[in-house]
Amino acid sequence: MTITTVGLDADDTLWHNETIFRLTHDRFVDLLADHADRDTLEARLAETEARNLRLYGYGVKGFTLSMIETAMDLTGGEAPASVVREILAAGRDMLGHPVETLPGVDEALAALSGAYRLILVTKGDLLDQERKLAASGLGDLFAAVEIVSEKNRVSYERVFTRHGTGPEQAVMAGNSMKSDVLPALAAGAWAVHIPYAITWAHELADAPADHPRYGALTNIADLPGWVRNRT
Amino acid sequence: MTITTVGLDADDTLWHNETIFRLTHDRFVDLLADHADRDTLEARLAETEARNLRLYGYGVKGFTLSMIETAMDLTGGEAPASVVREILAAGRDMLGHPVETLPGVDEALAALSGAYRLILVTKGDLLDQERKLAASGLGDLFAAVEIVSEKNRVSYERVFTRHGTGPEQAVMAGNSMKSDVLPALAAGAWAVHIPYAITWAHELADAPADHPRYGALTNIADLPGWVRNRT
Repeated sequence: MTITTVGLDADDTLWHNETIFRLTHDRFVDLLADHADRDTLEARLAETEARNLRLYGYGVKGFTLSMIETAMDLTGGEAPASVVREILAAGRDMLGHPVETLPGVDEALAALSGAYRLILVTKGDLLDQERKLAASGLGDLFAAVEIVSEKNRVSYERVFTRHGTGPEQAVMAGNSMKSDVLPALAAGAWAVHIPYAITWAHELADAPADHPRYGALTNIADLPGWVRNRT
Repeated sequence: MTITTVGLDADDTLWHNETIFRLTHDRFVDLLADHADRDTLEARLAETEARNLRLYGYGVKGFTLSMIETAMDLTGGEAPASVVREILAAGRDMLGHPVETLPGVDEALAALSGAYRLILVTKGDLLDQERKLAASGLGDLFAAVEIVSEKNRVSYERVFTRHGTGPEQAVMAGNSMKSDVLPALAAGAWAVHIPYAITWAHELADAPADHPRYGALTNIADLPGWVRNRT
């Protein structure tokens, strides 16, 4: 079965993202250092995020709202206004953060785009993801961009059918076992895991055991060769 | 030229939206009544929204962040935590608000979907728009759903080319002259304006003068007949 289509995750696959979230976490912990220690703050923020995920979905705006809510909860409403303002500023900084592609990305995508249809498949805030793609300079290499509210079997079936020749002829590559690899395999596509240095707790999952359509790479530079060898 | 495709705006075309934003505005004005009068509050909130639009885009999450920022600015940081919590709750209420289709919508879409390819074209938060479409019960009538960060000539060209047979054979219907009508006409499509009772200031624009592909209706119930007469 010939592979015609390569789906690529964006955040932490093509460019840094979790690093920027972690920096904002550090800023949040500093801001509220008088009220609770790091572990407590992190745990409460994670609880708030999980509770709000159903309403807010993924992305910076929902994360900012969850930080404000957590600050209010933790201080019993005693958080000075400067804390809220700082959190708003931190959110805006994330949305304006420069985009830095990861090592090997530019070359790998250039090599792949000559032979395969490339599709960006990502979650998060629509405008923010479009901005990052434009800022990355990679936009012209993609035949299609799909920003989805959830990455699951159904969304991969839809994306690879709409923009490619079906999941059986597509491979999905990304840093999240839970969002990029497992549901793409369930949809009948190939999948390649390329881990990032750190993974958001919400995205952790075990690797598939001995799956015929699964691959693991340490660097995206090896992706063009991996796809070519499947064809 | 036969029309094959009908694009439909969502908020304030298929279901109430601005009404819910206005209710939240009222709640915001009440919350801060000790600090400023209605006109001042509305003006400051509009300024904050306009300033943040480039970063936040459209939708409830960005609106909530702008309300919090405005409350902080207006009170010189003296806003009690209860105000911030109330604003967060107002935002969550908007995201969970029941979806009520406007009069005539269900019948018009049922009539159109038998003869034309229907495409939902909307701005706003991805997850929120998907939720509203699901809750409306109209989801199955649409061949495609496009949630875009901005409605302009380029996005209409792309949408009607990808999902239909090009803009020349497509009509866009919606309540916003600025977002639904003018850019669709510029893309070469037909366009129908169906006003809602109230319009967000940001969406106001003049009607096109004497345009051969433009129509104005007072109720979406007349849309199937209008499209049929163009064919």
